[in-house]
Amino acid sequence: MTQHLIEKKLSSDIQFTGNIIEVSLDHIQLPNGKTATREVVRHCPAVCVLAVTDDEKVILVRQFRYPCNEVLLEVPAGKMDLDGESALDCAFRELAEETPYTATSMTLRHTFYTAPGFCDELMYLYEAKGVKKNSALTPDEDEFVETVLLSKEETLQAMRSGQIKDAKTLIALQFWLLGI
Amino acid sequence: MTQHLIEKKLSSDIQFTGNIIEVSLDHIQLPNGKTATREVVRHCPAVCVLAVTDDEKVILVRQFRYPCNEVLLEVPAGKMDLDGESALDCAFRELAEETPYTATSMTLRHTFYTAPGFCDELMYLYEAKGVKKNSALTPDEDEFVETVLLSKEETLQAMRSGQIKDAKTLIALQFWLLGI
Repeated sequence: MTQHLIEKKLSSDIQFTGNIIEVSLDHIQLPNGKTATREVVRHCPAVCVLAVTDDEKVILVRQFRYPCNEVLLEVPAGKMDLDGESALDCAFRELAEETPYTATSMTLRHTFYTAPGFCDELMYLYEAKGVKKNSALTPDEDEFVETVLLSKEETLQAMRSGQIKDAKTLIALQFWLLGI
Repeated sequence: MTQHLIEKKLSSDIQFTGNIIEVSLDHIQLPNGKTATREVVRHCPAVCVLAVTDDEKVILVRQFRYPCNEVLLEVPAGKMDLDGESALDCAFRELAEETPYTATSMTLRHTFYTAPGFCDELMYLYEAKGVKKNSALTPDEDEFVETVLLSKEETLQAMRSGQIKDAKTLIALQFWLLGI
């Protein structure tokens, strides 16, 4: 049904191989038969977590994002470990690593591409249930993150005033506010 | 106030320079004095447009996204031209290039990073006003996009069933549904 939109790979040349990304320059055939090039960033899948406390506060983390040169407020998140970790296990792990909270269960709410124009990163959004504080949790010594709790009213205010600047966090918070 | 979270650049080595991205490997100093590396994708800013018709249907485009090997449903969007085009001009241009609709004005609704963990792409979300069909508009011969109109109910349904898989589109549609 969408066959007439599809681009076909003719060749792919790797330009950079790092620990978290691989970059390739691909030659492709457009649906009209012409050729073009595509710069493609390959990135492993990642997970983000919407976790809300018993008293209806969402758990966010404040951290410096080097590529943007800014401190951002985000939902807990991270890449899936390359040794075959599942998205679900990653969700439990990231919440516990980045905040002093744990959850008893996680439900997959949505799956989306962060920047499909040039990158294949797929993000799994989980909603945590049974969220409890566990003061025994201490962050990794090379993780510099601070926990921030916001009520629904504070979240709306933070969104309106432009303080939430991270795409996955906007999506998670909007799902929470919409209740869908 | 957030000084204790900041990472400092020690050096930056460009690994790949393309037409749409530049990739560098940076050595940085963590807040605790240790050093680490960061793989950074530089991408020019981009714009996406929430455009709703007089009869309350949102204008989406269906297009193939090569990095994801999937046809996605998205709000009209694109990169700002490198010759100094403003985000506002880009919003008008992308709506008219990708759909047979134009707008009389655009309001900036939000600005966000699509993938701040490894990429600096900043996305401007505009809301179009005075949206009208202009059948004289014909897409660029190398643009393969189809226009799709969805009511609020159809949008909710498409979100619930996982048909909206693009981050910026989820954000734009959720702003529309939330009415904030």
